[in-house]
Amino acid sequence: MTTLSPGILAALEKQAIELPSWAFGNSGTRFRVFPTPGTPRDVFEKVADAAEVNRLTGLSPSVALHIPWDLVDDFGALRRHAEDLGVRLGTINSNTFQDEDYKFGALTHHDERIRRKAIEHHLACIDVMDATGSRDLKIWLAEGSNYPGQNDMRDRQDRLNDSLRQIYAHLGDDQRLVLEYKFFEPSFYHTDVPDWGTSYVQVASLGDKAVVCLDTGHHAPGTNIEFIVMQLLRLGKLGSFDFNSRFYADDDLIVGAADPFQLFRILVEVVRGGGLNNPDVAFMLDQCHNIEAKIPGQIRSVLNVQEMTARALLLDRDALAAAQRENDVLTANAVFMDAFSTDVRPALAEWRQSRGLPADPMGAYAASDYQTRIAADRVGGTQAGWGA
Amino acid sequence: MTTLSPGILAALEKQAIELPSWAFGNSGTRFRVFPTPGTPRDVFEKVADAAEVNRLTGLSPSVALHIPWDLVDDFGALRRHAEDLGVRLGTINSNTFQDEDYKFGALTHHDERIRRKAIEHHLACIDVMDATGSRDLKIWLAEGSNYPGQNDMRDRQDRLNDSLRQIYAHLGDDQRLVLEYKFFEPSFYHTDVPDWGTSYVQVASLGDKAVVCLDTGHHAPGTNIEFIVMQLLRLGKLGSFDFNSRFYADDDLIVGAADPFQLFRILVEVVRGGGLNNPDVAFMLDQCHNIEAKIPGQIRSVLNVQEMTARALLLDRDALAAAQRENDVLTANAVFMDAFSTDVRPALAEWRQSRGLPADPMGAYAASDYQTRIAADRVGGTQAGWGA
Amino acid sequence: MTTLSPGILAALEKQAIELPSWAFGNSGTRFRVFPTPGTPRDVFEKVADAAEVNRLTGLSPSVALHIPWDLVDDFGALRRHAEDLGVRLGTINSNTFQDEDYKFGALTHHDERIRRKAIEHHLACIDVMDATGSRDLKIWLAEGSNYPGQNDMRDRQDRLNDSLRQIYAHLGDDQRLVLEYKFFEPSFYHTDVPDWGTSYVQVASLGDKAVVCLDTGHHAPGTNIEFIVMQLLRLGKLGSFDFNSRFYADDDLIVGAADPFQLFRILVEVVRGGGLNNPDVAFMLDQCHNIEAKIPGQIRSVLNVQEMTARALLLDRDALAAAQRENDVLTANAVFMDAFSTDVRPALAEWRQSRGLPADPMGAYAASDYQTRIAADRVGGTQAGWGA
Amino acid sequence: MTTLSPGILAALEKQAIELPSWAFGNSGTRFRVFPTPGTPRDVFEKVADAAEVNRLTGLSPSVALHIPWDLVDDFGALRRHAEDLGVRLGTINSNTFQDEDYKFGALTHHDERIRRKAIEHHLACIDVMDATGSRDLKIWLAEGSNYPGQNDMRDRQDRLNDSLRQIYAHLGDDQRLVLEYKFFEPSFYHTDVPDWGTSYVQVASLGDKAVVCLDTGHHAPGTNIEFIVMQLLRLGKLGSFDFNSRFYADDDLIVGAADPFQLFRILVEVVRGGGLNNPDVAFMLDQCHNIEAKIPGQIRSVLNVQEMTARALLLDRDALAAAQRENDVLTANAVFMDAFSTDVRPALAEWRQSRGLPADPMGAYAASDYQTRIAADRVGGTQAGWGA
Repeated sequence: MTTLSPGILAALEKQAIELPSWAFGNSGTRFRVFPTPGTPRDVFEKVADAAEVNRLTGLSPSVALHIPWDLVDDFGALRRHAEDLGVRLGTINSNTFQDEDYKFGALTHHDERIRRKAIEHHLACIDVMDATGSRDLKIWLAEGSNYPGQNDMRDRQDRLNDSLRQIYAHLGDDQRLVLEYKFFEPSFYHTDVPDWGTSYVQVASLGDKAVVCLDTGHHAPGTNIEFIVMQLLRLGKLGSFDFNSRFYADDDLIVGAADPFQLFRILVEVVRGGGLNNPDVAFMLDQCHNIEAKIPGQIRSVLNVQEMTARALLLDRDALAAAQRENDVLTANAVFMDAFSTDVRPALAEWRQSRGLPADPMGAYAASDYQTRIAADRVGGTQAGWGA
Repeated sequence: MTTLSPGILAALEKQAIELPSWAFGNSGTRFRVFPTPGTPRDVFEKVADAAEVNRLTGLSPSVALHIPWDLVDDFGALRRHAEDLGVRLGTINSNTFQDEDYKFGALTHHDERIRRKAIEHHLACIDVMDATGSRDLKIWLAEGSNYPGQNDMRDRQDRLNDSLRQIYAHLGDDQRLVLEYKFFEPSFYHTDVPDWGTSYVQVASLGDKAVVCLDTGHHAPGTNIEFIVMQLLRLGKLGSFDFNSRFYADDDLIVGAADPFQLFRILVEVVRGGGLNNPDVAFMLDQCHNIEAKIPGQIRSVLNVQEMTARALLLDRDALAAAQRENDVLTANAVFMDAFSTDVRPALAEWRQSRGLPADPMGAYAASDYQTRIAADRVGGTQAGWGA
Repeated sequence: MTTLSPGILAALEKQAIELPSWAFGNSGTRFRVFPTPGTPRDVFEKVADAAEVNRLTGLSPSVALHIPWDLVDDFGALRRHAEDLGVRLGTINSNTFQDEDYKFGALTHHDERIRRKAIEHHLACIDVMDATGSRDLKIWLAEGSNYPGQNDMRDRQDRLNDSLRQIYAHLGDDQRLVLEYKFFEPSFYHTDVPDWGTSYVQVASLGDKAVVCLDTGHHAPGTNIEFIVMQLLRLGKLGSFDFNSRFYADDDLIVGAADPFQLFRILVEVVRGGGLNNPDVAFMLDQCHNIEAKIPGQIRSVLNVQEMTARALLLDRDALAAAQRENDVLTANAVFMDAFSTDVRPALAEWRQSRGLPADPMGAYAASDYQTRIAADRVGGTQAGWGA
Repeated sequence: MTTLSPGILAALEKQAIELPSWAFGNSGTRFRVFPTPGTPRDVFEKVADAAEVNRLTGLSPSVALHIPWDLVDDFGALRRHAEDLGVRLGTINSNTFQDEDYKFGALTHHDERIRRKAIEHHLACIDVMDATGSRDLKIWLAEGSNYPGQNDMRDRQDRLNDSLRQIYAHLGDDQRLVLEYKFFEPSFYHTDVPDWGTSYVQVASLGDKAVVCLDTGHHAPGTNIEFIVMQLLRLGKLGSFDFNSRFYADDDLIVGAADPFQLFRILVEVVRGGGLNNPDVAFMLDQCHNIEAKIPGQIRSVLNVQEMTARALLLDRDALAAAQRENDVLTANAVFMDAFSTDVRPALAEWRQSRGLPADPMGAYAASDYQTRIAADRVGGTQAGWGA
């Protein structure tokens, strides 16, 4: 069995991957959302499910919230609920894509009333952060246009900058603004923050507390994502990851499910650039379990990240550097692939047990009665989803 | 002003583009459906809106229905309603993507009960066709899987063939089965009918009454769609078009909006292959007006098809053939581009007037009180959408 | 250490992957071809290099030839040379992309003189096959056009069919015509055989001895290649693979280098569909070692195929089928991923040794003096490349 | 006939599109370069051909050179030769992709000797600029790697920055460094400057005299290129265009040939952002006439840019802004499409004549004996191509 060195295990022990509250709610495509028994009706139940993932894996000590989906009257109570279950409340995600007013834009809107409303929404999110103790305000800008001519892209870019400046001004000393980019969807012609370059120039103009969020699904076909990871780390602006995977567009599949080698390459660059276990670079999932079971879906996801991190840490960087110096393409690639090809699962299982965790978290969840229990308990009410 | 020859005008006069009933209902993305005033509450109102498009353009004499969205107790009454408004009921579209049972497949499902149910749904659609006088049963197979290993793709393909055979056996002598293909969505790993090749081999095994539907949005990036048009016409299996356009994935934008030159090239191949005004090759729209006004959206769409058809008919095929024979790449391309670059709009406007149609159907609609009226009248009830 | 069952080892023992003679010659991009010391000057030296790959791996008992690049006066002598080195001459590849006459087409050309010449070239290839004992005539049709209007795609398709019929008529009873498809390049607007559907309908019209070649690099971004493997096996028309890998277009990188999981999925479908060690489904490499060492590049390639075949054979199909029957998406995927995640390299190394092969063929080559020897010996003359 | 306003004509009169000297030499794909009669043997003949394009169109007053392809002993003589023919020498393009030393990198190479050599090459290019009076040093970085692990992307990025700084330091006060980006090719795994973001952060760190070159073919499928035009103009860093078009990858087809609507949208953003006839934003072609006639290919190209510029200038920005303010998607799009749909060719032909230019430059060239003359005169010697 491959053994993992104490250094690698120490690095893995610190790993933390934030779970998105919405992964536990229902989701689907524009064609259909399939409900499932036991789906949470509110954020308290979502946090409970997230805590269960953490209990079995030790990998997910915090939960990201989405406002207004997870709005509650008493965030102090929610925070205590989380802490009682051994997890923290994490990133606060704003939402400017489901209000009638935002049909044609929010932070970019030409109507000052609507733009003001969108800015205020973000200030309210900062208030939530103050209550939850969250550090990061994550902004995914679901804005854009569907038809050429529909909008003036330049004016929108300038208004976006102004809006972000106003929001940034309200951040506390230890808070951050994290700007996500996305190639397309829900807009089909243009997206106001379509690529890392746009997110970068926007946050760079704001200041040190503004950084970029890289969602692994939000790129054009063929994009070398690990290059972007490298570049943003180099620029000191990689604030967080939204992990997921995809075959086509923003499929939001389980991270590592579509292209495990890509996930490995990304994590190799994270390690290379000092991004592992670096508080400046948050790891988070952003996925949709449309047809698979949600809690095991999250367990599988964090295990996939852990497994690929272990493989990335196995990379023999001295041997790699030596081969690179010789322009020995095949040896360098062989060193690289050797780390990827190594099966670290037995070593990870053994190590998990040594830490009092189940060797097989997926099996442990299946063997537990958690799913049966929530399916029985969570009856009545409205299951949480993107619209609630 | 460019003039259109009598031959071209005669061809244009015969042109018919079927409208989809669902284009008049609400639609959106997985993130949000924005409702609009005046949206139909039922299929009678959808047909009325479609008839309005036809009244202003003379281009859309029929309306496609979607079952169960457009299910009514008395299709005879619906048929008379349509005929009173000057239009016909057209293609019947089945739906196997919104029933809980179909979460993991329908015509391909390994559970014989569910597969039987899906087949029966199609037989019920044929019953509707008998009542509406429709010729075509269109099957878009929204089936597939999200994760490698989830399903046995080969077994599904075989079961699909068996299901289609059973449905095919119930077609009347003048009825057709039209099988659409789609690259991805709502499935993200594999789609059971992802490409024209699969649709072709499936329908070819059924018989002469089974043909392929080509949706212009359902292809991988960079696909030469007019090549497929050419090939399917050559094989005698191009049964119908679902027209729309897209920049990225299946954006379902107005046909011709994203790449008018592509629409031109497609129509050039249609003309070349004898597909224009050929009853075997149905023209239909399949679009979503997520943010733009729906009725004018449909008017614009049929006008775009008409305009590009006119340009395609302007192509000087003798000059083109001569340049091709000489391997004169630039002259051949120049002849081709000359047709595309010609502004046929004034000639079309004049011709429209000569036929008693408004020169500017978009302006005529805007000047009419139709929108105001339906917004005022259609109050209460539930607006139609994909879920209803 | 994972152990491989006798059944798996028996399957692996039969595996044969044909090497392309041109992989040992120089290749490059349109910008530059970098020569390397020891590059063969003729096909005798190419065959010697291929034999060296086979000597170290036991995986590549045959060599594909490219006509006219590998044309010799005495194919009997070449055949004996190969056999003396323990390999056979395999597939004969025609070439219709480097003659001035073929600038605008060959088997599709409107000029009957040129089309006749292209057909005759293929008949000459069949003569070579008779001399070499080759079974397969592989046709990659590098034909198409660069500008819309340049050619009549339909006429070309019909002429292609006629050309193929004439060639097919000359095949011996045990010979096959294998038609490759390619999405684009060297043509940029249209390719005459761009997709599996076109290759399929062309060969299906010819007869049982005509089959499709699937080059893993010749697809649009996002294409589910294993689906095509499944479909062609289902249709009995998957004649051969051209293995390679790519990140963007037809990069011709080492198979398995860009997306090892994709290679695994392809091999799972090969096994599923009865294509493994099936003489009807030939395995071949088609790669370009532009910057890496060529002989080790080929060794690495066949080892990659072997390794992924071993993983594919490890798939627990009973467990998979059980999970699929339960619609248990995550368990099915877990069973699938378990096979992929298993490190079979130690078991393969041990097995290799048991067969008298080096445990580490890459290391054995590096430790040998073969490269030094050919670099010293092969001085003078013109190194082989695509133009020679 | 559509008339073009005096304002539009004044803008068009100032338009200048630089021609690349290499467009007149032979080019091709990795499979084949087809020579053509009359191809220049040296840069003097290339400049003569470029001057002929300018003589017929009045659109191309300067010629870009490529070093070392266009290296001459006496650039003063070349300059006078150009001026005698009515054109100027323009941008100097460096070349770091054809020297054996640059196989694994140039400005990014870990070997300081090679990196120094590459820097010196650029300093020599600046010397050429001083002799030719050129303003711009354009750097297309054909560097990267083919296999994961082959190189340390981060180190390369840092070394690139250092190299660029050294080159930048040698620029004269009125000279600029223009850094091109490219998605892929000739490297297949990673490109050192793959996207506008990377080019931007590199040049932004250098100073005001460093800007970005946008080649319209160098993007991932589906990329909204006009968005990037907008963003770079907004940031004051759009230094130049390399115009061409493509269906798939870097096809280098005639600008406007593949997607004329995209070219229109790009030019609309250029006008919107103040980039038209702005000396800071140079227009240049970068194309390959692999199979079509070269001089007419260049004439067609500059006419395409002129035609789309005219259409972009026709855009009724007041009407557009009004519709945008109303969120009237369809009207805004209609205003946009109205400009695109207008046939400006007759008005341009008339205006050309009024300026003493042929109404139909393509026809005028065909009617002239220029091609016959160069085919007769340019016999012997070696035709220019990428390798010479």
